[in-house]
Amino acid sequence: MNQPFRVLAIESSAKAASCALVEDGKLIASSFRNNGLTHSVTLLPMAEGLLKDCGFTVKDMSLIAVAAGPGSFTGIRIGVAAAKGLMWGAEIPGVGVSTLEAMAWSCRAMEGCVICPAMDARRGQIYNALFEITNRIPARITPDRAISVEELAEELKNLKKSVFIVGDGAELCYNTLDKLGVSAALAPEDVRFQSAVGVAYAALAADPSEWGGLEPVYLRKSQAERERDEKLGH
Amino acid sequence: MNQPFRVLAIESSAKAASCALVEDGKLIASSFRNNGLTHSVTLLPMAEGLLKDCGFTVKDMSLIAVAAGPGSFTGIRIGVAAAKGLMWGAEIPGVGVSTLEAMAWSCRAMEGCVICPAMDARRGQIYNALFEITNRIPARITPDRAISVEELAEELKNLKKSVFIVGDGAELCYNTLDKLGVSAALAPEDVRFQSAVGVAYAALAADPSEWGGLEPVYLRKSQAERERDEKLGH
Repeated sequence: MNQPFRVLAIESSAKAASCALVEDGKLIASSFRNNGLTHSVTLLPMAEGLLKDCGFTVKDMSLIAVAAGPGSFTGIRIGVAAAKGLMWGAEIPGVGVSTLEAMAWSCRAMEGCVICPAMDARRGQIYNALFEITNRIPARITPDRAISVEELAEELKNLKKSVFIVGDGAELCYNTLDKLGVSAALAPEDVRFQSAVGVAYAALAADPSEWGGLEPVYLRKSQAERERDEKLGH
Repeated sequence: MNQPFRVLAIESSAKAASCALVEDGKLIASSFRNNGLTHSVTLLPMAEGLLKDCGFTVKDMSLIAVAAGPGSFTGIRIGVAAAKGLMWGAEIPGVGVSTLEAMAWSCRAMEGCVICPAMDARRGQIYNALFEITNRIPARITPDRAISVEELAEELKNLKKSVFIVGDGAELCYNTLDKLGVSAALAPEDVRFQSAVGVAYAALAADPSEWGGLEPVYLRKSQAERERDEKLGH
């Protein structure tokens, strides 16, 4: 008998933190906390508790998966650092997946819909990508990008599909689209936010050749980098 | 400022166990375990850990909510007993909600669809009820009942709506409906099963006059009761 393939996934790209254990494609356990505490306090004890409840240690895992960005710089850094610690400590592979793609995997039930994840990127932009759910799999329509809601509105007008908005910037995005005459559905609050369950399924869909190269993906420069560039006249 | 209204919800009607904390309608924390351990081991420590992670004790809750049935006799008994313990210990109200209705609340994103929860009731039947999602609220079409999939197929044929099947008996129900020529969508595995998040939202929708009357709802007699009835010639 083959060993079961177990993915431990962690997500900390915005205010909420979550972790999930998927064994041979089946969700075994998940924990989600949006309690206002910092991820450095919440994330690893939560993952540890989840494994302990299921009678596992990190060494029983086949793969560590993490939302590698875009998202909050601090959140992404904590998630990727935690994933690297788990990988290296237990000598198992890890994979970073797009936060936005992970959100689309959480929406697999919305057959035929365009999934529109929106994360507040400040400076008048959202982090976004578009996916269409076909046979329960999110097919990517656009790359991950930082974009204004006005530009997104033009794209969605041309697509002429049912649009379902998720993510911590979903409400802002929905309200602006509505003003611009683009009709879309806003995900109910309990399924709106980033979750490690989607991270696990996105990781299972990733090519194993991508495992191991675990680098954060910020999409934009941090404030400190921007300020340094300005100072140096770049 | 008003005190926040906090619901602690627990769910143990089938093999999985879960708990969730909803504050003023917002999901703060959830835990889900489908690890094969008995609910008597899993449920209360999981709820305790969830509250502790958020810095709360049971006394900070406004309402305890539990899936009161239908479902596994043992699972329902453990859930209702745990809810009563929490209620009486902390002197706060509790409410039991329909397991099936709670599942429909978890499917609020499926606007316009008929939600068809199916739990394996053995003896050729499923526990089932039908709900239609309208403006993100599940409107009940039928009462909770034990029914054969053949009878259900006739009802669904007449409804002529998109049907979305959830629950631990979803796959069985989907396969039989398919054979009978009724087209329906089977929920992806990660959103298919009973969850305490839906229990919390169903409880928030319940009339406060229903709080307190926390009795299990089995829909059918237990095997022991049936055998006794047969013995006594009823």
